[in-house]
Amino acid sequence: MNRREKANMVDNPVRFGIIGCAEIAKKVSRAINLAPNSIIYAIGSRSIEKAQKFATENGLSETVKIYGSYEEVLEDPCVDAVYMPLPTTLHVQWAVLAAQTKKHLLLEKPTALKVADLNQILNACESNGVQFMDGSMWMHHPRTKKMKEMLSDPKLFGQLRLIHSTSTFSETQEFFENNIRVKPDLDALGALGDTSWYCIMAILWAVNYQLPKTVTALPFPTCNSDGVILACGASFQWGEQDIKIATFYCSFLSNVSMDLAVYGSNGSLHLKDFIIPYQENSASFDFSSGAKFTELHLGWNLKPTQVQVASELPQEALMVQEFATLVNSIRSSGCKPDRKWPEISRKTQLVLDAVMKSIELGFKPVDL
Amino acid sequence: MNRREKANMVDNPVRFGIIGCAEIAKKVSRAINLAPNSIIYAIGSRSIEKAQKFATENGLSETVKIYGSYEEVLEDPCVDAVYMPLPTTLHVQWAVLAAQTKKHLLLEKPTALKVADLNQILNACESNGVQFMDGSMWMHHPRTKKMKEMLSDPKLFGQLRLIHSTSTFSETQEFFENNIRVKPDLDALGALGDTSWYCIMAILWAVNYQLPKTVTALPFPTCNSDGVILACGASFQWGEQDIKIATFYCSFLSNVSMDLAVYGSNGSLHLKDFIIPYQENSASFDFSSGAKFTELHLGWNLKPTQVQVASELPQEALMVQEFATLVNSIRSSGCKPDRKWPEISRKTQLVLDAVMKSIELGFKPVDL
Repeated sequence: MNRREKANMVDNPVRFGIIGCAEIAKKVSRAINLAPNSIIYAIGSRSIEKAQKFATENGLSETVKIYGSYEEVLEDPCVDAVYMPLPTTLHVQWAVLAAQTKKHLLLEKPTALKVADLNQILNACESNGVQFMDGSMWMHHPRTKKMKEMLSDPKLFGQLRLIHSTSTFSETQEFFENNIRVKPDLDALGALGDTSWYCIMAILWAVNYQLPKTVTALPFPTCNSDGVILACGASFQWGEQDIKIATFYCSFLSNVSMDLAVYGSNGSLHLKDFIIPYQENSASFDFSSGAKFTELHLGWNLKPTQVQVASELPQEALMVQEFATLVNSIRSSGCKPDRKWPEISRKTQLVLDAVMKSIELGFKPVDL
Repeated sequence: MNRREKANMVDNPVRFGIIGCAEIAKKVSRAINLAPNSIIYAIGSRSIEKAQKFATENGLSETVKIYGSYEEVLEDPCVDAVYMPLPTTLHVQWAVLAAQTKKHLLLEKPTALKVADLNQILNACESNGVQFMDGSMWMHHPRTKKMKEMLSDPKLFGQLRLIHSTSTFSETQEFFENNIRVKPDLDALGALGDTSWYCIMAILWAVNYQLPKTVTALPFPTCNSDGVILACGASFQWGEQDIKIATFYCSFLSNVSMDLAVYGSNGSLHLKDFIIPYQENSASFDFSSGAKFTELHLGWNLKPTQVQVASELPQEALMVQEFATLVNSIRSSGCKPDRKWPEISRKTQLVLDAVMKSIELGFKPVDL
């Protein structure tokens, strides 16, 4: 389906302006093209050459507007929504401006350096009646919904006891010297912002977004010479009387891992690719329920079952589709923006802040 | 192979006396029979009826001596070694006595309530020239050796970053009311002793038994009304300059899990049945090395490989065989007892003590 066909097919495709040409924008621009209810309308970078280069290299349609500044994208009245993959430090400035120019906002994660900044963004979105969503793609995969179904089954899974999640990458020397994600003036949260975002959201997702009462960082994070976190972990508690706890670990210094394990009183769920599935069209997870030992504890009565979930569109296209659907219902029927996605982002950022505070306090428990 | 055939086949099968008729003794008595260099010579319980019942129900040979006390087993000069599955509180008393009567000692885990008690046991074994080993069966599975080989390969795995391990069971009401493992006067360490023993040893195994510098319990453990731990976790650190960390979680309140995940700079290893393999004759683990994302991070270049390892004998029989081999070399060539196994037990107990201390101190880091 090309751009023109899509424009004909849906009444009102959401017209995206992309602000910034980060690596991740390549994947999301492909997703905007794949989603049935959105098109790329404009791309803006700090230089028009960079924007043009991005458009050419990513095969964007020749009708896409090329701008040499972020402002021009925001000023274009035909742009309905912006996708913003800027360095975290710049989010509050540009996201607030986007909301003020009535652009719906798909914002890369981490959404902000601290929850106070995110609150400014969310307030701007709310008062301007525009939709907010962060770029956590895995939340939109049908596998995520299927996992939730099984975790919610009291017989299959029972009561939640433990969640463990990792998000790690092994980065190159070049990354550690030049990447924005290890620069205190660009992405000051380092691995904590970039990779633990997923883990924290996954933990919140598993507990139906019930905020932990206490967040306790694990000693000792690894930092670079500028003090930016390269690896760290934390544990979450929901009160002394609540049995469940959670742990996560994030790192730029470890082989790729995207583990999520959820343990309940009757069952358990495991997957090793929760953030980016191994393959686009189908993803799986392991689920075990009612496992027991055989006589004399010589073995187990069962092994985990692999549950396969097909996906017609890649998860990032489903994210764009969901976002564009919400935008369209605001545009067509004057609905208020959906509050679920901003609230998930806000809670994730709140917990992330608490992890940072616990690190600063020498790994003391921080109350939320 | 029956008992007589085995006695003929090997010059000097190690003659075991079993002290106590715990559930686990059924599995280990089968293992003693399966191992090619050991036989069950005697069984002792606090009542002769209980010992006789155990012998009958477990099909022990009619020539096995049945004793109505532990002392009689220790006093029998034909008993070379004792297997001791007594409640932890009784270990120091009976294990020291066993060593003093020159019986080699296969002791169930947790080895003691605290490392000072274990030191008494180990000193008694050393000064009496008898072999000590604890009952951690999984350490003797060929899979464990294969995993170590792969984790030691600097290209395949690289430097160690994170170890995560769980050992959980979902127990019945009957267990919580009556089992010795939740009674302060019998197994006062509860889940921390019974199940975290495996996790702590697995973590030490993964780091080649380098003791952590700091042990920090996770808030908040779940305890029964007697204060016995039913669920808890901890993290281990090897110093502020050492990137690697470890976490574990143990519980009597969660569905069965026996997870071990080891993450390195180049690879990672996962298995979900490290303590008791799903099946006796073959076990597996997942190993991944050099995983990267495909272009645009749309997927991964590879999935983990499942590595299968066959086992001719169950791991508990391999444990008995290894123990009996060490006993035989002491008996036949006057070797000193092997120091590797007692040292592994001692380090495990030392770390376990530190976890308990950190819990008592309100989850503060405890230096080792």
